[in-house]
Formats: sequence, C-alpha cells, structure tokens
Amino acid sequence: MPVLLEPDRAPALSELLKAIPGGLVQRVVQGSGDFVDPPIAGLGALTSAGPSEISFIVHAKYLPQMSQTRACAVIVLPEIDEQLAASDPVPAYARVVCKHPYLLYARLAQWFDWARQPARLAAIHPTAIVDPTAQVAPSASIGAYTVVGARSRIGAMTQIGAGTVIGADVEIGVSSNIHARVTIYDNVRIGARALILSGAVLGADGFGFAPDPSIAKGAWGRIPQFGGVLIGNDVEIGANTTVDRGALEDTVLEDGVKLDNQIMIGHNCRIGAHTAAAACVGVAGSTTVGARCTLGGAAMLSGHLVIGDDVHISGGTAVTYNISTPGRYTGVFPSTEHAEWQRNAAVVSQLSTLRKRLRALERG
Amino acid sequence: MPVLLEPDRAPALSELLKAIPGGLVQRVVQGSGDFVDPPIAGLGALTSAGPSEISFIVHAKYLPQMSQTRACAVIVLPEIDEQLAASDPVPAYARVVCKHPYLLYARLAQWFDWARQPARLAAIHPTAIVDPTAQVAPSASIGAYTVVGARSRIGAMTQIGAGTVIGADVEIGVSSNIHARVTIYDNVRIGARALILSGAVLGADGFGFAPDPSIAKGAWGRIPQFGGVLIGNDVEIGANTTVDRGALEDTVLEDGVKLDNQIMIGHNCRIGAHTAAAACVGVAGSTTVGARCTLGGAAMLSGHLVIGDDVHISGGTAVTYNISTPGRYTGVFPSTEHAEWQRNAAVVSQLSTLRKRLRALERG
Amino acid sequence: MPVLLEPDRAPALSELLKAIPGGLVQRVVQGSGDFVDPPIAGLGALTSAGPSEISFIVHAKYLPQMSQTRACAVIVLPEIDEQLAASDPVPAYARVVCKHPYLLYARLAQWFDWARQPARLAAIHPTAIVDPTAQVAPSASIGAYTVVGARSRIGAMTQIGAGTVIGADVEIGVSSNIHARVTIYDNVRIGARALILSGAVLGADGFGFAPDPSIAKGAWGRIPQFGGVLIGNDVEIGANTTVDRGALEDTVLEDGVKLDNQIMIGHNCRIGAHTAAAACVGVAGSTTVGARCTLGGAAMLSGHLVIGDDVHISGGTAVTYNISTPGRYTGVFPSTEHAEWQRNAAVVSQLSTLRKRLRALERG
Repeated sequence: MPVLLEPDRAPALSELLKAIPGGLVQRVVQGSGDFVDPPIAGLGALTSAGPSEISFIVHAKYLPQMSQTRACAVIVLPEIDEQLAASDPVPAYARVVCKHPYLLYARLAQWFDWARQPARLAAIHPTAIVDPTAQVAPSASIGAYTVVGARSRIGAMTQIGAGTVIGADVEIGVSSNIHARVTIYDNVRIGARALILSGAVLGADGFGFAPDPSIAKGAWGRIPQFGGVLIGNDVEIGANTTVDRGALEDTVLEDGVKLDNQIMIGHNCRIGAHTAAAACVGVAGSTTVGARCTLGGAAMLSGHLVIGDDVHISGGTAVTYNISTPGRYTGVFPSTEHAEWQRNAAVVSQLSTLRKRLRALERG
Repeated sequence: MPVLLEPDRAPALSELLKAIPGGLVQRVVQGSGDFVDPPIAGLGALTSAGPSEISFIVHAKYLPQMSQTRACAVIVLPEIDEQLAASDPVPAYARVVCKHPYLLYARLAQWFDWARQPARLAAIHPTAIVDPTAQVAPSASIGAYTVVGARSRIGAMTQIGAGTVIGADVEIGVSSNIHARVTIYDNVRIGARALILSGAVLGADGFGFAPDPSIAKGAWGRIPQFGGVLIGNDVEIGANTTVDRGALEDTVLEDGVKLDNQIMIGHNCRIGAHTAAAACVGVAGSTTVGARCTLGGAAMLSGHLVIGDDVHISGGTAVTYNISTPGRYTGVFPSTEHAEWQRNAAVVSQLSTLRKRLRALERG
Repeated sequence: MPVLLEPDRAPALSELLKAIPGGLVQRVVQGSGDFVDPPIAGLGALTSAGPSEISFIVHAKYLPQMSQTRACAVIVLPEIDEQLAASDPVPAYARVVCKHPYLLYARLAQWFDWARQPARLAAIHPTAIVDPTAQVAPSASIGAYTVVGARSRIGAMTQIGAGTVIGADVEIGVSSNIHARVTIYDNVRIGARALILSGAVLGADGFGFAPDPSIAKGAWGRIPQFGGVLIGNDVEIGANTTVDRGALEDTVLEDGVKLDNQIMIGHNCRIGAHTAAAACVGVAGSTTVGARCTLGGAAMLSGHLVIGDDVHISGGTAVTYNISTPGRYTGVFPSTEHAEWQRNAAVVSQLSTLRKRLRALERG
C-alpha cells in the first residue's frame, strides 16, 4: 500500500468524512478497538490496509477477509453492518455505514488524490515553446519540451505534461490534465476537467480515400480531413488512444465520455454523454453511439452505424448493424480446450447444410 | 464547416475546376439561382455547406437532402443531373456533372488542402538536433525538439513534425510529411510522398525469441532483429500504428499501401501495393499480403501466411490459413441480444455431438 | 542482408563458437569448399546469406534451400548433418552440428548484436532534464530531450532514449534499454535487463470509475489509482504497449515476461514469469495469468480471471472464465468465403432452436 499522507497531515476520520460531499454516510459505529476517531493516512484493500488506513467492502462475499483486516475503519453496507454488530466479539475497526460504499470509496480516493498532490507552481517550463499568439491562463502549467501552437488557448488551472505537442487553434478548458507525450492536432477543442493520458493522439487525419485509377490500378487518392474534434466536459481519454478528426464535420465526444487505453474512434463519430469504453475498442468512421452506453474491451463497431442510448456491448463483440433498443448485446465464439474447439469449429462451416438435413428429416 | 479560404482567395468555380487534373468534369449546368461562376471558399456536406461552398452527392438516396442545401454548387452524377434538370423549379445551385463525384470531391479537397496551407519556410528549428552526418534537403523542414540520427537523409520539401525521433541511416523521400511525435528507428527507408501520423513507430524490434532453458524453465532468449523496414512511395501510416523491423530481411510496405491507426505489422511481413487496412488490424510476422487487398477493422492475420492479390477480409475476421483466390472472406460470430447469444453459444460447444446425433437419425 | 561486422572485425568460426556460452555445439564438420575456419561477418537466411555469413536450418523441410546457399557455414541438427555427410558431393559449407539450432542462432545473433554496437559513451545529453534528486549511475546514458523526475534511479549501464519521459520515484535496474519516446509514470519499478520499445506507456492510470448519479444520470466518478507497476528482471515490452498502474496494489509483470507491441495490461493484473504475449493482446483489470503461458495475437482476457501456469491461448480468442488446467484453448469463428459465412452465420442465431428440433425428432 502506498502511504498517501504523512502522519502529521492525516485527517481524523470525522474530519475526513465531513470533507466528502454528498451525504453518503449514514452513521459511524465505534468498534471494539482503540480506534476512536482515528487519523486516516490512506486507503487500502481489506487484506493489505494498515492501521492508519480506511478500507471498504462492497459485497458480502468479502466478509471472510474482514476478520483479518488491520484497517482502522471500514466502509460497509447497512446490512453488513448489522451482521457485524451482532458478531462476537464486535470488530475492532470503526464501521462507516453507507448505502453506496463504492461511491464513498471513490470520493475518499479523490480526496486523498487531491490532498497528496504537491503544491504545483503554475509555470511554463523554460523549454516549452508557446506560440506568441497562444493564450495560457496564468494558473495553468506547461511541462518541459512541450509545444503549443498558434492561437491555442489553455484554461485556468490546467496542466500540460512534458513532451506534449499541441497544434494551432486548440482549446483546452479549465482544470484539465493533459499528461506527458500527448499529441493534439490543430482545431481540437476540449472542455473542462479533461484527463488525457500519455500517448493519446487527438485529431489525426481520418482514414478517407477515393479509388483513383489515374495513379495506378487499385490505387487510393487521399481525401483531406477538414473537420476537427469536439470534446465535452469531464471526458477522460486513455493511453495511446486515438480520436480522428472529421472529414468535413467534427468528430464529437460528448460530456462525461470515458475512453480507456488503446481505443480507436474513427472520423465523424459521435460518442454520447457518459458512455464508457474499455480498452482496445474500435469504432469505425461515422458511427454514432448513444448516451450511457458501455463498450466492453475489444468490442468493434462497424462504420455508419447508429447505436441508441443505454446499449451495452460485451467485450470482444463485433457489431455490424444498428441497435435502437437498450440492452446488452453479445457475439463471441466461446473458447474451449483446443481439440474441442477444432471439433466444433469444423461443424460451423456446415451449419447451413446441417439445417437442411434437419429439415429433410422433419419432413420425413 | 470550416471556412477553408478567405473570400479574397476563393477561386471562381470555373477556375477551380480548371485546376483539377483528370478531365473528370463533363459539364457545369447553371442553376436557377444567382450563382454565376460563384467564388468557392470551401467544401461542405449537403446539409451543412454554406453559400460559398461546393458540395457533392454520391448516391441517389441523398437526393432529399439536396432540396435543402445552401451550397452554391453541387457535384452530381449524370443521371441525377437529369432528374434535377427536369425538376420544377430547377435547383438554385450550379450542377457540376461528373461520373465519379467522390473522386472529384477528393481532388477538390486535395486542392483546398494545398491552397489553405500557410507558406511554410523550409527551416530546421533551432532546437532540432540533427547529426552532422545527416543530410537534410534545403527545402525540407524539421520541427522543434526533433532528433535526426547519423547518416540519415531527408528529401526535398519533406516536413518533419515536433518531437519526432529519427534514428541512424534512415531515408525519407521527397514531399513526405512526418507528423509530430513519430519514432523511426535505424535503417528504415521511406519513399516519396509518405504521410506518417503521430505516435507511429516504424522499425521497432520484431518479437523474436528462442526457448532458452539455460535462463530458467520456460524462459525465452531474445533474437536480435537485424533487418530494416522498406516503405515504398505514396504510403500512409496512421496514428500509433507500429511496423516492426525484420529479423534478417526487411519488413516491406509496397507503393500506395494505406494503414489506418493502431495497426500492427509484424516483422518480415510484406504488404502489397495499394493494399489498405482499416484501424486495429494485426498482421503477424512473416505474412505476405498481396496487392489491392483490403483488411477490415480489427481483422487479424496469423503469421507465415500468404494472402494473394485482391483479397478482401471483413472487419473482425481472424485469418489462419493461406488465401490465393480473390474475393471476400469473413469469420465473425454474429452479435445478438445477450440472452439469445447465451442460448446459441451454449450449443456451439455441442456442435460436433449435434452432428453425430443428426447422422444417427439419418441412418434411422 | 545487413553486413553486421566489417571484414577486419569478423571472428573466425572457431573463435565465434568459443564465445557462445552453453556448450551447444556438438562438432564442426569441414565441407568440401574452401571454407577452412572462415571469418564470419554476420548471419543470414539460407537463401540470402553471403559467403562471409553463417546460416541455420531448423527443420528438414528447408533442406532444398541448402543446396543453393552461399553461406560459408550452416548450423544443422545431427540428423540433418548425417544426410548431408552422405550426400555426393558433400556441401561446400562447414556444418555446425547442434541439437538446438534455433537457440544457437539466437545466441550468435545476440553476440553479433553486441559486437556491432558502437562504443557508447555513458553520458547524460546536455538537453536531458534530470531532477537533482534523481540518481543516474555513472555508466548509464540518457538521450536528448529526456526528462527524469524526482528521486528516480537509473541503474548501471542502462540506456534511456531520446524524448522519453520518466516520472518521480521510478526505478530502472541495470543493463536496461529504454528506447526513445517511452513514458514511465511515477512509482514504476523495473528490474535488470529490461527492453522497452518506443511508444510504450507504463503506469498510466487504470480505468476505474464508480457510478456517480450526483454528477448526472449515468455519469461516472473517477477512482484515483494509487498503486504502481512492478516489473521483474529480463522483461521486454513492445512498441505502443500500455501497462496501467494498480488501483491500490501494484500491477505486476514477473521475471522474463515478454510483451509484443500494442498490448494492453489493465490495472491490478499479474502476469507470471516467462509468459509471452503476441501483439494486440488485451488483459482486462485484476486478471492473473500464470507462468510460462503464451497468449496469441489479439487474444482478449476478461477482468478478474485466474489463468493457471502453462496455459496457451490461441490468437483471436476471447477468454471469459478461469482456466486452471494447462493446455491450449481456442475460440475463433472460422473464416471462409463471405457467402459461405453468411449462410452459416445465419444458422448460428438459430442453434438453440435447431437443438430443440433435433431433440424432438429424437423423441420420435
């Protein structure tokens, strides 16, 4: 476990909980141990948290781990708290009773993440090359060897990491965090509170070609891509993820979109608000995905599709048609021991024949 | 829509069409509006083009959008032009009649892309580190914080973006455009008119290992990769795509190959001329792909395969055997609502048994 | 073929073999040619090696190529040597008889790779920005425009390429090679003899969110990621591969793990010793993979799985359940000509019904 705060900076449990917005905590129950409003230096998993850390349990199946925890406080569901209160002896740790323990854990983690940050001086590193026409908010910071192009605007409190290259006419909103070695092409606009991880490439040219036999038989002529990328507020984009610029219009990521690593969003796509995609997902060009969707890891969406709101695509699934009804959709060949797969896969290429034979039998 | 050219730089329609090579335009038909040889400042989609823009229609299904367009000129197929000429009233816009509207659009877009470029001064940025033995053409330009290794040669009019790292003994042909934050390892040779997008890595070591039990049970000993990467003319390589160097020979991309983002080309592969691969494709080592093939998004080709010319692999398809006959090849588990998938997938692992049972019934 | 060493540096065959550890060579048999202990300037494939190169044959199916080789020496299996000794005329080249020709080839390649390296001066490039609290071994070298954060430690003889960004509290062991344009986030620890290729991102934030309806319906609240990445000795990580930091604990790659390009390892994963993954593999968060496993290209493992030792997953296979038994596991929809696929895929969504109909027939 990382010790997140030095002991002299660790807040008492009651203070810590007061700092968390949302009225999530129902009550705090004193345990049988010495932990009277203990100082909390960090968070930890049940099995590895130390005595100055708070832990959490999100499911009753982890109850056996609770008897071993050294944490001084544990976030618990009301029904788990009742079980623990009835146990003999009562656990040593304080119980923080809460209907949404995972959300409370997230909020506590956000608080510690904020509290552990060293005070950053707003500064443009002397090696950063910022075009004289760019506007960088006085409270923003820009890392070493970063390049910012003409007329680009960097919002207040936004941090840009080392080695990042930002083109011309880029806008980045307030309180955003662009990590090291990101590329942002010209005409990309990003809202507030963005988080962009290293290696991400935003606004590279979309993959557009017209067959051009005048070059050679079968040759392709490039279609320049004039659109931009428009990214809403609270969007997070993972490491080495790529979002291409549109051909004529913008590629759009709406508010709250979360993209994991190594995702590819093609040109002219629109990804709806609060949609989350796990790693290695690909969305081909001109596809629209609705709000509050989830795309499992390595899911692949064909181009020019329309996927509605609240659609959940399982990992590894290829989607080749429009989906308008909310729900979960899947298409994965089940994996098995190899020899068994061989036997069954051999039948796959005879399925149509098999169906005919079955019909023939049915007709007698 | 981006306004591509300021009004004082917008060419008249007739001038613009004269600048486009290829004799693609059959005729220009005046519409009922005031658009007499109008100035054209840019291109736009039918529904979003403004009155100083030219648009295009590639399929009759978009005809309904034409009645709403504000474009001053529209590229149309001859058969669509006939319909429009017979309509009452005749549309306001000028009709540019052309048998290949998509190609004409591509050519116009290329013209605008060229015309809108600010005049770039050929220059080596003062922070670029160019080895004294490297040769950079006087008309080439090299961006900030870019590194060029020993004996490398950069061709005339070629542009290298910021933060790119180029190794030793690299050759890049004329009129190429290497964007920001690209990595080109030693001994990679690239032809003329290349376009390499950010994050691409060309010439990283191939993944070659020999089992070496002297290290540990099951351990792997590295096989150094001595080959290079040889890239023809007119090749485009997408963002975060990787092309590994060969083990002993070169990995080869022939003329006109187009690779989208996040593609992986393994060591010793050869990709034939004018073959295009959509995003997230993987080609394992030592596989040869013929000319004029297309690989759909996330298609995966096993290693040591030979794929002939004019083969088209659908998106999401895994190819594990040689293909010599031109045509389209597919292998994707169809996706459905999840519960339906569960029911059907459960049968997949019984297919071999099902076939046997069917046979037994057939035998009576 | 690259000439690996200038003639005056090429060792005689006997000297070269003496330099290779492991006692792999059984004997060297003189051929009918003039090659008496010839100088060896490099390695080559049978069909392209020149007369100053050594080649190898790992399988009898390549025997026809041996009659054409110009190599002065060839590594052969004992049984192949017997065939060659009995042939008339005996081949011109010297035969290096060895039970593990591929391993001997790997060792020779390693030797040449080492011998061809120009003497590198241990040096920190004047443009590298190394935090004053970082410790760089005197024999380490750091490239241009590289950034090394506070308290990080770079081991002896380790090389860091240009444009790489290394965070705070990073440890890199001895004799490691971190190529250009790598990102290593804070708190990543890497063992000895690592090889990290360009574009790799180690320690980016894992993809962790809790539903947070207080932001908006369906919105996600970020869970900060406090763990690190712990990487053993002899680990190799390919170009543009990403390994995320853990949420509370470390993400772990054990000794000898080999990851190809464009792989994604999610947060909290543990990859066992000597496990090798081919390109485009994805392992979702909290999954444990055992020792000596292989993951074929584009294989995808769901999150929270436990995969045992010596498990081999075929390329393109999605694994969604725990595997404890060693062996090979596969799940790929077989690809065929498209029309055939259409016919068969249509039946896939009726499989459950088909089974029922078959049962009905069986019941008579």
